[in-house]
Amino acid sequence: MTPPAIRFGARLTRAITQFGPVCVGIDPHPSLLEAWGFEDDGPGLERFGRTVIEAAAGNAAAVKPQAALFERRGIAGIAALAGVLRSAKQAGLLTILDVKRGDIGSTMAAYAQAYLSDDADLAADAVTLSPYLGFASLAPALDLAEATGRGVFVLALTSNPSGPAVQHARDVTGRSVASAIAQGAAERNRGVQPIGDVGLVVGATVGDGAKQADVDLIGFGGPILAPGFGAQGAGVAEVHRVFAGAIDHTVVTSSRDILRTGPKVANLTDAIVDMREQLAT
Amino acid sequence: MTPPAIRFGARLTRAITQFGPVCVGIDPHPSLLEAWGFEDDGPGLERFGRTVIEAAAGNAAAVKPQAALFERRGIAGIAALAGVLRSAKQAGLLTILDVKRGDIGSTMAAYAQAYLSDDADLAADAVTLSPYLGFASLAPALDLAEATGRGVFVLALTSNPSGPAVQHARDVTGRSVASAIAQGAAERNRGVQPIGDVGLVVGATVGDGAKQADVDLIGFGGPILAPGFGAQGAGVAEVHRVFAGAIDHTVVTSSRDILRTGPKVANLTDAIVDMREQLAT
Repeated sequence: MTPPAIRFGARLTRAITQFGPVCVGIDPHPSLLEAWGFEDDGPGLERFGRTVIEAAAGNAAAVKPQAALFERRGIAGIAALAGVLRSAKQAGLLTILDVKRGDIGSTMAAYAQAYLSDDADLAADAVTLSPYLGFASLAPALDLAEATGRGVFVLALTSNPSGPAVQHARDVTGRSVASAIAQGAAERNRGVQPIGDVGLVVGATVGDGAKQADVDLIGFGGPILAPGFGAQGAGVAEVHRVFAGAIDHTVVTSSRDILRTGPKVANLTDAIVDMREQLAT
Repeated sequence: MTPPAIRFGARLTRAITQFGPVCVGIDPHPSLLEAWGFEDDGPGLERFGRTVIEAAAGNAAAVKPQAALFERRGIAGIAALAGVLRSAKQAGLLTILDVKRGDIGSTMAAYAQAYLSDDADLAADAVTLSPYLGFASLAPALDLAEATGRGVFVLALTSNPSGPAVQHARDVTGRSVASAIAQGAAERNRGVQPIGDVGLVVGATVGDGAKQADVDLIGFGGPILAPGFGAQGAGVAEVHRVFAGAIDHTVVTSSRDILRTGPKVANLTDAIVDMREQLAT
């Protein structure tokens, strides 16, 4: 394996500078497919993805396909996801595959091979990871990401009602679970310029959650993936408040608010550009 | 959807009574495929799975395909996994698909559709779930499992070194994360006979972990999936100690110790029967 010319943190930072901080979710929900007049099958899912990609190219830093919504269509859904990832790459978009995987040892290494190796059907620029088995269990994915110029976003703080019960819980030393995740990321990111490859997922609607759980969103030294922006979530002011000091390496994802304007590419593009302009104010 | 005739807890209990408590991991690691002389591709993975199934049928309660090891081969790997799940069903084995999925809302529902619905390519009798987003976030999967006569095993206590940092952490009321998961499962299982459909994953090597984290392995009222048995893990005495009082609804999984005896079906069968007999003592 030849070392990558440019690491993920640098590639993401460049994409944000060039195309803005929007990350467009590719979430082919059955209801959206129906509204768009697309079939809920492999070709329909792939067409859905390609439509979003056409609208996002040049206007967004990244796209974030939601694996679950492809997995639900079985083998055909996975084939569609592979096609979507290829299309996004060809369109110059970074791909953040939302798989929320997490396991230990050689099993974790197998997940890494599935999504973070150059020759994988489902190779993405980055994946989301879930740390219920502890931050250290994710090491095989972090190692492969580093070796292939890719990145990861580890779930840290989410704003669903049951999230804090896990994420704000504290160990015997008083350290919160989310803080331990951020500290683990910080160790991996130390010294990597402009930022490291190990990002965190932090909901835009967590409010004071980072403060409450002692999570240092600036000092951990990696990118942030922030879901929850939009009509039923956080507004621009909240994004700037929650991610103050870290906004330059935060990608803000939106799915429903953008996708509901489809399937016309021009309308999707307008929605993406509108979000980008909102975030720039 | 017609309601299932028999719920998962009852089906698992019956399988344990009939075939013993062994759950055989289907873990097509590259090194095992090589040792077996099988190709590391779709057909090789499916052949690997069918070989294990042939040995397990009649001698084990269930098989546990490890999704990561199929996902790493992309589209062909998923097709192989679908074939393996079908073969196991035809052989009368319960299937516990180890996917460790976890998300929220409609995304969690999509994962449920992928693995717990009757018409899914990858339909299994049960799946493993990861609760970093909180137990309540898993509800869509629990609901679909109940509706289709299927089950789930939620990660609770694992014995990898970094697991307790998350699982033993405590909320402001002093309740541990793993205990909260078990309590959530208990609420779902209440009143379901002989046991509920919501199981827990608890490592056989956690030692006093359940006690330390106040996890009630008897009172939660569901089945237990216990990895970690074998040469480099827990012995029979430890299994009986850790799962005392819950042993009748505990399936003990083994992968490497059994799989290293392949690819001869007779040798794999011997290893499975040997483990079954060890656990019966």
